Amino acid sequence: MERLHVQTPGKSYDVVLEEGLRHRLSDYIESTYSKILIITDENVAELYLEDVRKALGKRGHVYEAVIPAGEASKSFRRYEELLDHCVEAKLDRNSLILALGGGMVGDLAGFVAASYLRGIAFIQVPTSILAHDSSVGGKVAINHSKGKNLIGAFHHPEKVLYDTETTDSLPEKEKRSGYGEVVKHALLSDEGWFREVMNRTIKDLDTEEVKKDLIQGIRLKARIVGKDEKERGIRKHLNLGHTLGHAIESELHYGSITHGEAVVIGTLFALRLSNLDEPFALLMEWAKDNGYPLGIMEELEERNLVDRMKVDKKAQNDQIHYCLLSEIGSPFVTEVEEEELLQSLQQFKSEVIQ
Amino acid sequence: MERLHVQTPGKSYDVVLEEGLRHRLSDYIESTYSKILIITDENVAELYLEDVRKALGKRGHVYEAVIPAGEASKSFRRYEELLDHCVEAKLDRNSLILALGGGMVGDLAGFVAASYLRGIAFIQVPTSILAHDSSVGGKVAINHSKGKNLIGAFHHPEKVLYDTETTDSLPEKEKRSGYGEVVKHALLSDEGWFREVMNRTIKDLDTEEVKKDLIQGIRLKARIVGKDEKERGIRKHLNLGHTLGHAIESELHYGSITHGEAVVIGTLFALRLSNLDEPFALLMEWAKDNGYPLGIMEELEERNLVDRMKVDKKAQNDQIHYCLLSEIGSPFVTEVEEEELLQSLQQFKSEVIQ
Repeated sequence: MERLHVQTPGKSYDVVLEEGLRHRLSDYIESTYSKILIITDENVAELYLEDVRKALGKRGHVYEAVIPAGEASKSFRRYEELLDHCVEAKLDRNSLILALGGGMVGDLAGFVAASYLRGIAFIQVPTSILAHDSSVGGKVAINHSKGKNLIGAFHHPEKVLYDTETTDSLPEKEKRSGYGEVVKHALLSDEGWFREVMNRTIKDLDTEEVKKDLIQGIRLKARIVGKDEKERGIRKHLNLGHTLGHAIESELHYGSITHGEAVVIGTLFALRLSNLDEPFALLMEWAKDNGYPLGIMEELEERNLVDRMKVDKKAQNDQIHYCLLSEIGSPFVTEVEEEELLQSLQQFKSEVIQ
Repeated sequence: MERLHVQTPGKSYDVVLEEGLRHRLSDYIESTYSKILIITDENVAELYLEDVRKALGKRGHVYEAVIPAGEASKSFRRYEELLDHCVEAKLDRNSLILALGGGMVGDLAGFVAASYLRGIAFIQVPTSILAHDSSVGGKVAINHSKGKNLIGAFHHPEKVLYDTETTDSLPEKEKRSGYGEVVKHALLSDEGWFREVMNRTIKDLDTEEVKKDLIQGIRLKARIVGKDEKERGIRKHLNLGHTLGHAIESELHYGSITHGEAVVIGTLFALRLSNLDEPFALLMEWAKDNGYPLGIMEELEERNLVDRMKVDKKAQNDQIHYCLLSEIGSPFVTEVEEEELLQSLQQFKSEVIQ
């Protein structure tokens, strides 16, 4: 069992990582909550809801809400539907929402918890690699048709309870997505870890490798969030690869490409803008070898992508702010001119599509 | 000009009261905001939008969103619509939402500001007496069909800029509504002020009287919110009259009765439950003389009202928590049994309907 700690001005909480933790959830959840609403998606429900149900079995007042899987569920409609669930179950200010699933479930359930009765407690129970990023740090949100995560809140979980066994059963596409955030964290951290990650093969990942990467990623995130809870300064570094990544996802209506896959393309582009040629070539090769869908760039118009970037949350005065690297482990944020972006995107497309 | 200060752990800000302030808004709003979105309703727009537009005239990037007047606008639909406005105007994290109107506009625009890009700045420009309560303290929300203000956040304004001239033009019904919160504040404060208020005649209110009551009310609210920002303790006292008040409003679908009118009925009931016979009789007479629609109780079923109270935000473990007074100026919160509530409501109905 591994226990990491997140300490921010607003809240402090533990992230517990353990194999098979889902069977022992009850040990980690205080018995003082009046009611518990489990929010999960159809895929995760099929795999783990029964285990969680059993683990919480002795508690009274456990409710469940199962939503369709996929990023498209991070919508107004599902948000409203889940709030209806809260009202019907008569959750009160001492109730708990348990977000069982990947990043989509955590973001959506977290925003429900943030806004129901002006905020009730929630616990993240991540079941994907990708969620090692989203479950820590208190950012919760839903998507607007014009942009990802445009509506949301800062609302920290009471705890993050991570059953590392659940990441084994992920389909390859989801592992690929999860490693998008791992690559990002490695590039923000240090050269050694980045090169280690470039030696991983997505379809042959073993549990120990994954656990190690998760812990390193969460440590980095906890350190950054501890210093800048509300993203006024260094937390912006965590957006490495996300400016273009979000634009791609939203151009494709959050469907045909996963978040982490989009982030890898975005990170590649950030390395290109940073003029880091060797890491760029290395990541490009790794991404191709591991099946990241770089070819999707062919379908996307540079002009549309840049317009999407302008409604990004990081944009200011219609100027696009970009996280770049002076070298691996040394991120900085800078304004990039629209014209430069358009040209670089054009060149980038021709490089990745080959 | 009167300047009051609100100091909470999360935020500190000024409440400025001044006659004709709307014409000088620009003096009080920093010029560093990238864009300003004015949110207001049709009634207020007709009276004051032109003045505000002129006052901000020299600023670029001023946008407007006008919604239908009335509590029914505090809905999911309008919330979503206003977020669309924010996205279309490409508001960024340095933009400002200006809530020009009564409590409905402030609550709704405040929740939009709280959740757009996970929170941007907003300034309250109240134009009603009622809003002296809602504009201070950071509670923002929309209604759920099952209960008032069930979805929302704590998000403080940067400032409250109160043009006391605007309260003169209110229709009598709105003045009556505003005095619902004044009566509540007086009962929470002291006997002297309560008796003063009982000498006011709604249709003959003069600007100075109103201003005095507003200042006293805001002072009380600032004191309470300063000690208990997130309503874990004494802030619950501000719910005096609101448990039944909200239930009435939501039974009537936020239409045929104003918030403050419902609060006066709720406060009367709280005095009855508190066994404070003399203040009860005094408030009852005042309410009748000033046209508060006590007769509405005839149309309402006790059972339904109690069921509504159970989804109130203050309910815990399905138990109804009630703010009562041991004497004027001495509030406390207690659990009231369902059976007792049903019986008391029955008796109360027969008293107020006569």
